[in-house]
Formats: sequence, structure tokens, C-alpha cells
Amino acid sequence: MSFKSDNCGPAHPAIMQALNDANQGFAPSYGADDLTAKVEAKLREVFEAPEASIHLVATGTAANALALSTLTQPWQTIFCTPLAHIHTDECHAPEFYTGGAKLSLVGDDDKMTPDALQAAIEGWPLGDVHCSQRGPVALTQVTEMGRVYSLDELSALSQTAARYDLPVHLDGARFANALAALGCTPAEMTWKAGIDAVSFGGTKNGCLGVEAVIFFNPEKAWEFELRRKRAAHLFSKHRFLAAQMLGYLTDDLWLTMARDANAKAARLADGLRSVPDCHFLAEPQANMIFATLPRATHQRLMTGGAHYGLNQGPLEGGAADEPLAMRLVCDWSISDDAIDHFVALAMGD
Amino acid sequence: MSFKSDNCGPAHPAIMQALNDANQGFAPSYGADDLTAKVEAKLREVFEAPEASIHLVATGTAANALALSTLTQPWQTIFCTPLAHIHTDECHAPEFYTGGAKLSLVGDDDKMTPDALQAAIEGWPLGDVHCSQRGPVALTQVTEMGRVYSLDELSALSQTAARYDLPVHLDGARFANALAALGCTPAEMTWKAGIDAVSFGGTKNGCLGVEAVIFFNPEKAWEFELRRKRAAHLFSKHRFLAAQMLGYLTDDLWLTMARDANAKAARLADGLRSVPDCHFLAEPQANMIFATLPRATHQRLMTGGAHYGLNQGPLEGGAADEPLAMRLVCDWSISDDAIDHFVALAMGD
Amino acid sequence: MSFKSDNCGPAHPAIMQALNDANQGFAPSYGADDLTAKVEAKLREVFEAPEASIHLVATGTAANALALSTLTQPWQTIFCTPLAHIHTDECHAPEFYTGGAKLSLVGDDDKMTPDALQAAIEGWPLGDVHCSQRGPVALTQVTEMGRVYSLDELSALSQTAARYDLPVHLDGARFANALAALGCTPAEMTWKAGIDAVSFGGTKNGCLGVEAVIFFNPEKAWEFELRRKRAAHLFSKHRFLAAQMLGYLTDDLWLTMARDANAKAARLADGLRSVPDCHFLAEPQANMIFATLPRATHQRLMTGGAHYGLNQGPLEGGAADEPLAMRLVCDWSISDDAIDHFVALAMGD
Amino acid sequence: MSFKSDNCGPAHPAIMQALNDANQGFAPSYGADDLTAKVEAKLREVFEAPEASIHLVATGTAANALALSTLTQPWQTIFCTPLAHIHTDECHAPEFYTGGAKLSLVGDDDKMTPDALQAAIEGWPLGDVHCSQRGPVALTQVTEMGRVYSLDELSALSQTAARYDLPVHLDGARFANALAALGCTPAEMTWKAGIDAVSFGGTKNGCLGVEAVIFFNPEKAWEFELRRKRAAHLFSKHRFLAAQMLGYLTDDLWLTMARDANAKAARLADGLRSVPDCHFLAEPQANMIFATLPRATHQRLMTGGAHYGLNQGPLEGGAADEPLAMRLVCDWSISDDAIDHFVALAMGD
Repeated sequence: MSFKSDNCGPAHPAIMQALNDANQGFAPSYGADDLTAKVEAKLREVFEAPEASIHLVATGTAANALALSTLTQPWQTIFCTPLAHIHTDECHAPEFYTGGAKLSLVGDDDKMTPDALQAAIEGWPLGDVHCSQRGPVALTQVTEMGRVYSLDELSALSQTAARYDLPVHLDGARFANALAALGCTPAEMTWKAGIDAVSFGGTKNGCLGVEAVIFFNPEKAWEFELRRKRAAHLFSKHRFLAAQMLGYLTDDLWLTMARDANAKAARLADGLRSVPDCHFLAEPQANMIFATLPRATHQRLMTGGAHYGLNQGPLEGGAADEPLAMRLVCDWSISDDAIDHFVALAMGD
Repeated sequence: MSFKSDNCGPAHPAIMQALNDANQGFAPSYGADDLTAKVEAKLREVFEAPEASIHLVATGTAANALALSTLTQPWQTIFCTPLAHIHTDECHAPEFYTGGAKLSLVGDDDKMTPDALQAAIEGWPLGDVHCSQRGPVALTQVTEMGRVYSLDELSALSQTAARYDLPVHLDGARFANALAALGCTPAEMTWKAGIDAVSFGGTKNGCLGVEAVIFFNPEKAWEFELRRKRAAHLFSKHRFLAAQMLGYLTDDLWLTMARDANAKAARLADGLRSVPDCHFLAEPQANMIFATLPRATHQRLMTGGAHYGLNQGPLEGGAADEPLAMRLVCDWSISDDAIDHFVALAMGD
Repeated sequence: MSFKSDNCGPAHPAIMQALNDANQGFAPSYGADDLTAKVEAKLREVFEAPEASIHLVATGTAANALALSTLTQPWQTIFCTPLAHIHTDECHAPEFYTGGAKLSLVGDDDKMTPDALQAAIEGWPLGDVHCSQRGPVALTQVTEMGRVYSLDELSALSQTAARYDLPVHLDGARFANALAALGCTPAEMTWKAGIDAVSFGGTKNGCLGVEAVIFFNPEKAWEFELRRKRAAHLFSKHRFLAAQMLGYLTDDLWLTMARDANAKAARLADGLRSVPDCHFLAEPQANMIFATLPRATHQRLMTGGAHYGLNQGPLEGGAADEPLAMRLVCDWSISDDAIDHFVALAMGD
Repeated sequence: MSFKSDNCGPAHPAIMQALNDANQGFAPSYGADDLTAKVEAKLREVFEAPEASIHLVATGTAANALALSTLTQPWQTIFCTPLAHIHTDECHAPEFYTGGAKLSLVGDDDKMTPDALQAAIEGWPLGDVHCSQRGPVALTQVTEMGRVYSLDELSALSQTAARYDLPVHLDGARFANALAALGCTPAEMTWKAGIDAVSFGGTKNGCLGVEAVIFFNPEKAWEFELRRKRAAHLFSKHRFLAAQMLGYLTDDLWLTMARDANAKAARLADGLRSVPDCHFLAEPQANMIFATLPRATHQRLMTGGAHYGLNQGPLEGGAADEPLAMRLVCDWSISDDAIDHFVALAMGD
């Protein structure tokens, strides 16, 4: 019963198989292999973006930090929400990779609004050498609270950015889950909505460790290659990144897993709606649930073997009925039994 | 017939198996899993270093840059040879990770001598605020020309460093091949010889992509953890790094593969000694051969299907008897047939 | 009638004289001259801090960025207010000098409170490798809104920092004005109140361009020297920095000028209290006034030859009675006539 | 008798006067003052470069580091000699400001040759992501050994750089001395000879502390402004930088002082030619002399009150006739008497 994170689950067998299949004989190193060429072609097809530049790395933080540093001068500020992963969970990777850019926090929520974005941009006056200079807008889809921007919301934000001539980056660590939730195409959720660059996640959705950085305008492709090598993120046995991503994309495995994970989270959310004193902090739209439960319920769950993140603590001490917030994440591999058992425990059955 | 690099070959089946075995159910992320604990214990045992801090990353450049940046202040200089991988092949990763440290080139060869090291150190006067400040000594074992420092040579260099109170880092991308060549213990080739930190390579010797950074004095372990996360080199599904390294160390697989690779290179070197106008640039000691062949011989080899690095060029044009330098690398998987075929082609048989 | 900034005014004649006096014959460079030794001794005496390390630079941003970078690791966060000069007016100098540290904004005002500070510190959990690590607390005295922390307020903030083992830096660009306002000793406003390092400003208070960085614990003095040289802020003809600072400190000139500037600002504030629809945004305590006036009054002032900063605009268009915020700064050189003329213009006389 | 450095001497009285004259009333800060506009116009006139962008800073290291960082990507290498000030005397300022660029050392002398430059450039292959990428060529005029590149030498070097599409920077800490030695125009020694950017020194030649960075192509002017502010080198009371530089340029004072300094050095060199066992290490061409004298002669000089740099030591101990290298620098203010006295002491008169 692990709802701790979608990076605690196993890789999908088909991806493991792709990895094993790739392990035959010699292959050119550093991305000159056939599988890498194939995965680049496949991603361009998936995104309907024949010009896009594609670059594989092994971690989501690397994808974000490398993509953003390619779009940001050191004296510019990146606009993101206060809950953005790049702000709260990457130990200054964006600041390190950009050489000292600043993150300006927009609004006070996981979702940015055009008005809040405009206010934040205007907060740094143009042409003033003393200030942060305006830089890219960084969005997360699925957001850090499990919500999903609609295509209209994405477009409104990117139009605001475009009015100030600022590029837009999308942290898609859970890109597939968002796509499954919206039921649209990858192109619609990215370049057709004004997104310039994407961190296209594989790790959380059934891979071992692979992410693709995609720039729809490839003019900085060589700079990105240099940044990746300089940051030590260019794999010598690159075929093992490519194989994972290729397995991920083959036969829409990535979408199947994302739909499964979302469906599991929906089943879990449905169950929780019947649990006494369970309150959702955000309406679940993809594969994450943020909700509160009374301390006593948490104690019963944890004693019963459930694993998940408790955002407020401590578990021990305090009133039995004090509401404590939790995060529950479903990956492709979680079973219906585990979900039902969790709900039953929460119900006190 | 690929002698291009030991990062072009496949992973060893036992390591693939270890990876497959690790892919069961849920496991804590970011290194809190059981396999990571096991691999750390195993490496401490292998190195007879119960206090050592152990950190896994996926690339050799990451291992080097993170290890060196932990030992180097931005205003210090790292002492290395002009052929050092950190100088010639890492696209400024050391400079980036250290925040602007300088590499001072010692001697003009792949192997450093104590005298050359001392001269380089004294080249930067002590206590002068205008100069580079003296920092760590960085050695590579196996060297970039395929040679191996003897234990006495390592000790003499580390004693020179110690006289100036400077730490010593060992780039062990081919650590196992050097160890197999020397027939000593890991402890003897590292901390007993005065080495403070090691990049312990797995990738080139049969893994998919894993290296261990080892500090024999663990006082900077937490700083290293922060540096690794900040550089985006902390894997979420960390068990997949640990599994590779554990498979690598189990039943001395790492040493078996290294001995095999060295033996293959010896077989190849023996064959080349009979090839007309073949001249070794360095006496082969591990799994790499640097030698010259006439242009016409290279043309025959390449036409015949051989893959390897030509350090001087171009292959086309120029005199048929002009000597051109090549690098030949053997990994665990190369076959005797491939070697014999290569030699036969070179002989013109 | 310039109330634009205290960096628009002239240097005091006595400081100019000190500069001229220093321009005799040869003197050792890079701070090895006699004047530098004298000014260091003098500052140690002024601060009753015989162990302090003292370092001169030419700009306030250099003083802040160098001092903070000496106290901050790249993965740490600096706690400051959203109005802090280091956040709003230094074009990422702190981020650049620290190698990518983050500024965490405390509260929503120019003055930090212990509660807001504690909440911000606790916002970054201890021992989590993914997060910003807790770093120094950065205060500004006089604040960016012209207010002055009392000694009790400073102590309460530094005690909060001390509970988390965090150092405290004081941006004293207007140190003298604050000291004059409080009527205490330099020691009381710094180390006796728990301050670890100070940017002691001279430029805004009658010098040409000189600031002293003071560390009460000198253990990082050599690191600071290296940081200063590396950042190109070590002057070769260092006597010209020292001479200014020595002239500044001689016969309490610095305090005399600060008291004069504060008195001028008080006279101006008194006058403004009679001006219709003038509202103070913060109670003036030193030499800066933040207030609103109707647009029409601003138009009359500017037409009449007044120079000052209008924080909201534009001046043209909009309703005549719309309140617009302004900043008025007095330096030692402003005349009573200028002040009275300004007030008369504002009154519409 | 100080021949230690041209940064030990006093500022010229006319420059002091200009500084005093500038200290009248209020002036806009941060370079918006009239004097700054005047000095920019004057420098454009002096360099016959009406489009050039001009930026003042206070130290030579700041001029070099800011200029070079504007021309260099972090993954590029700067080509300079092993004696270059930017390599030996700036405590990694170039590495810091560029965010980790590397300095590739060309030749083994103070003067670069086109052949050595070409070899160094070709040492880093084009289009290889693992290597340093080729960046700007950095020359010093007067060189660090007191020699002067002829116009033909400069052009040959810049033509080599241009063949690889690399920009050229000139460290002109002693620009005026070189110009006086060559008897050419500033334009001839810079843009007409293919130089793209100059650090135009004032400090060593009679100013207190001011240098101008000049870009003949102004397309990166705004980036430079941001870099300067971010590095804390933008002066608030900017008129005091401008006043120095304006005084320096008025009535050709800069050239007069440089010619005087060169003439003094020539007088000193002439005297030294008669001193027993004095050997020049480089033929003096401007205001610096590098030569050896026997230890006993040095002892006599120092005992007699001479101040100068001894590049090898120690002075005490060792054979009386052992040759030790010295550096002698003349500035505008050194007297003929001091020179003659020095020579007489060296002669043992």
C-alpha cells in the first residue's frame, strides 16, 4: 500500500524488456546510436513537431535546470508559483545552472493566473539595470497540488508571457497524466498552447530514469548539448536512456500507464469521499490526491501498513481529531486491492 | 570489431539480471532503499574503509566534478596533467561545479611525477591574494594513455601533495583495470597510498551507467549530498543505480571483467607487435593501446570493418606510409576472434 | 532642490581634503599602505572590536555581496524582506557572488519581525536535501522605507537567528543615520545586538565611494580577501579608499553629517505635515521620507524645479487628486532654503 | 626610489583637480551625470569610434573580467599567454565572471605569435561537445614583460583570430605607455588592428582608480551594463570616475604622462647597461624593465633604500654573485634624481 510517490514504484515490464533488448553488441556512445535517432524521430512525431530539438537526460531536475538555463540569462528572473518544484524541491539547481538567476514567486497557489503573472512581470520594471530582468515563465503540468491546467488556461498564460516577449517552459514530470486528464494531443498541450520548451517526464510514469527536453524552436540545440555535457548529464552508454524512452512511447504505453494511474487515483478519491472528516485540498484531476484526515485516522492507516506523505506533523501527540494534510500518489502499478484496503482502513472498517 | 571505447560495449548479463531483479514492487526513493544501503556496506568492505562515505551517480564526469568541487574552493587550482580527462573531455564540468576553479597542467605527459607536481605547486606562491590558491591533486588511474601508476608512484605523488597539505583525488573510470594490472587491493591503491577521494567507475567496465564517489574521510558527506542534488544527479529511483553497482561487485564480477579486458588488450598488443611499422606510444598495461600504424594500414582496417579512434587525421589523402596514431580499447565483451581478425587485417593477411 | 538620493550629493570638503592629503609620494599598493592600517585600527576602536577584520570596497553592493557570500553556501537561502536592497536593487549580485543562493522573502514589509523570520526559517525543513538550506539573516538599517530598528528589535531578530545557528548581516548603507537616530554606540547597534557582519556605508553619507565590511569574528578574513580580489574589488591604489574612510571617521565627521541629514529630513517632514493631502507611508526616523501627494502637487513641485523619486507614475495624465507615492532623501549638504522652498511649493504658496 | 609598481605612485595633480572640480552640488547618480556623457564622447573621439560603447570601472581586473565575460560563453576557452595578468594575477576573476571558462595558455612567453595561437586554437577541435569551445583571444599591451606588440604583430594575431571567427580583447592597463612607444593613434592600435574590445587603463598612469572598457561594436552594451551592476562595479557617485578619466584625457595629459614614464624607464635602462652583470630579460620598450642583478647588488640597493619587485628570492643567503631577476617600473612621477641614485647604488659608487 504505497502511495508515497510515483517514483517509488517499479518500471513497467515492457520498458525493462526494451532495456534488455538494447543490450546487444556494440553501439556508438554519447547519443550517436540508432536508438537515440529513433526516439528523437518518434518524439517529433508524437509532438507533431518536425523541427524540434530533443535531448534525453536521466532526472527531472536535470531536464528542468538545463531547459531553463538555456532560456534564462543570469540576471533574469524566472516566474513560477511558490509551490513550483523548481523552487521547493531542486536544492537551487535552477540557480546553479543559470549562474544566479532569481525565481520570482507568482501568486500563492499551485496554479498561476494571467493576472498574477502580469502583476509579477510588471513588478520588475523594464530597462532598470538595478533590477531583475524579466525572464521565462515556468509552469508545472500536472501541478504540485495534483491539478491540471486546461488548454485555455495554458494559452492565456502563454499569451501573457508573449505580450512581454518571454518564453514559457513546462515542467512535465507528469506530462502523461495531464494529457490523459485533458484528453488532448501533446501538440495541443504544448506548442499549440504557446509553450516553447518542455521537460517530458518518463521516470515517474513507469521508466527507470529518463526525461526528454524538447525545444520547439531548435536554435539553441547546440548550446543545450554543451550545457548538458558541461553539467555531466550526457550519458556515454546513451542507448540505455533511448531504449527506455522508446519503450515508453511504443504502442502508447505511456498513455496507457497514465490513464491507469489516473483511474486508480479516481477510485481512491471516490473511496475517500465516504471517509469521515476527509477534506480535499484540491480537486483531484490526475494521479495525486491532497486531502486532510484526522490524526487518529492517519495513525490507523500507518499502523495498518499504508505508506504516504504526511505534509504536516507530527503524527504522534496532539489531538486525535486534528486534521493533518497528506499526499497520495498512484502509479501505474498500484492495485485496486491496495486502494480498497486503504479506504477500508481509513473508514475504520 | 569495435575497439572504439569501453563505453560502446554492452552491459554484462549479470548486471542486467541484477537490474531486473531490483524491479520488484515499491522501494523508497532518493537512496533510502535497501539496495543502496547494501551497496554502501559492500563498498566499505571492498575498500576496507568502514568510515567512508559512498555516493552513487550515473556518469564519470559527474563523479569527478562533484568529488573535485567538494575538495576545491573556487579560487583554488586543481593540479592535473595536460591529458587529464577532466581537462580535455569534460567541457568545463570541473570549472562549472567548482564555481570557477582553474586547472594547472603538470608536466607534459599522461603520468605526473613528484618533481613536476612540486614545481607546479610552487609555481603558485603561498599567501598571495592575486594568484590561484593551491588545491587538490587529480590523478587518473588507468591514465589517459593506458598506463598504470605503481603503488610507489601513487604514494610518492600523494606524499608530495601531503607536504603542501593538499588532498588527492583519483579518477578511477578504469579503476578495476588498473587494480587487475597491479594485482593489489583497492585499499592499497587508494587510502593506503594517500588517496583521499575516488571516482570508482562501473560504466566502462560492464555496467549501464553507474559510478561511486568514495571519500575516505566522511566529514563532507552532507555537503556532497547537497552538491549532488543541486547538480540534478540524485536519482529518484535510486535502486536502479544501486542494483547495477551491487551486481558489479557481487562474486568479484568487476575484477573478472577487468582481468578479461586486460587480457584481451594484451592479446591484441601481442598481435600488433608483429604488424609492420606498428609503434606503441605507451607500453600497454591495462585495456587500452595507443600506437601508430601507416595510413594504408588504417585504410585497410577500416575498410575491413574495424571501429576505433584515430587521434590524428585525416584518413584520406596524404602519404600511404605516414604514421597515424590510434587508440584501441578492449572491454569485457570483445571476442578473441575479433582481435585475431583485426591483427590479421593489420598484417595484410 | 534635489531630494533624489543621498548618492547625488557632493562629497564633504573634509573628505576631499583627506583624499588630497593622501596623494603624496609613493605608497605600497593593494592595502599595504599606512592609511589602510590606520583606518582598520580606527574602525576597530569605533566598534570596540579589537579582533574584527576590516575590508574596504568602493560600492555598497560590493560590500553586501562579498559579506553575504562569505557567510552563505550556494545551497543556502538568505532571509531578507521583500523590500531589501539586496533583493530589489542589486541585479542579482548576491546570487552571483554566492554561486546561486536563494533569497527567501520574510513578511511583506521593510521591517522584519521575529515571528515572520521564524516562520520563514521553518518554511525550509532541516536536513532535507531537496530544499534550500537555511542561511544568514540579512537586515537593513536604516530600512528601505526610512525606518530604524530599535536595539530591542535587532536583538530579538538576532536571537531568533541564533536559535537556528544562523549568522546575521546588517546592510548599513545608512548606518550613520540609524546610529544618529538611535543615539547609541556602534557596538550596541551591531555585535552587542547579535550582528555578525556589517556593511558600514560611507558613500551615501558624504564620501566619494567607500564602504567597510566588518566581521566581528575574523576567522574568514583570508577567504574574504580572496573573494574581494577574485571579484575585482581590491583597489591597487588602496590608499584612496582608506583616506576617504579615515576622513569620514575623523572628529566624528560621519556622525555630524548623519545628524545634519536627519535634522534636515525632520525639518522637511515637519513642513510636509501641513501640506494638504500629504500622507506618510512610514514615520520618518532618519534621512528618508516616504509619503504620498496628489498628482497636481507633484506636477507643481517638478515644474518648480524639485528633483525626487516618484515611485508610482505616470506623472502625466490621470486624476489631479490621485495620490502618488514619492521618496525624499536628505544628505548632509541640503540647505534649509531648499527644504523650505520645497514645502512652500507643495503648499502651493 | 620606488620602482615597485606604477600603482604605488600618486595621482597627477591635474586629475586631483578634476576630481575636486567635479565635487559641486548635486549630480544624477549611476552614470546619468554630465561628466559621464562628456567622457564617453571624448573617448569616442580619441578612438575615432563614434559607435563605440564606453563603460567606466574602478579597477583593471574589473575591466578585464567584465569585458572578457561579455565575449565568452562559460564553455569556451580564452587564449592568452602563460604570463597574462588575467591568468597569473587576478585570482580567477575571469573564471568567476565567465561562469567557468578556461584559460588556454599559448606559447611560453609574454608575447603571442600567430603560429602559437593557431596551434592552440586547433588544439581544441571544432564541434566536439566534450572539449573546450574556442573563445576570445586576450592580448596585453604593454606585455607583462614590458614589451610592446608592433601594429603588424597585432594585426597578424587578430587576423589569425578572425580566421576562426574569434574576437580579440586587449588588456591595456598600460595602453598609454604602449601608444607612446609606438607613436601611433589609439585607433591604429585597436580597431584598425582588428581589436574588438579594450580595457583602457587610467589607474597605473596617474589616475586614482579608473579604467574604461570600450567595445567598438556596441551590440552588447546593455548586457555589459547588467554584468557591471551585477558585479557591483557600477558606481553610484559615478561622476568621480568620469572626472578622473576626463582629466586624464584633457590636453593629452595621459600621453604626456606615458611619454614621461617611458623616458624615465629609458634613462634607467641606459644607466643599467653600465652596471656589472646586469642582464636584461627583455628589451625595455615602455616603462618596465626586467633584468637580473647579482644578489650582492640587490642587497646594496635595498639597503640603500630602493623599492622594487624581486621575482626570485630569497634575498638573504645564497651566493653573492647569483643572478636574481627584478622588475623595475617607472611612473610619471619618478624623478631623474631617484633614477640616477638607483644606478649609482647599483654601480656601487
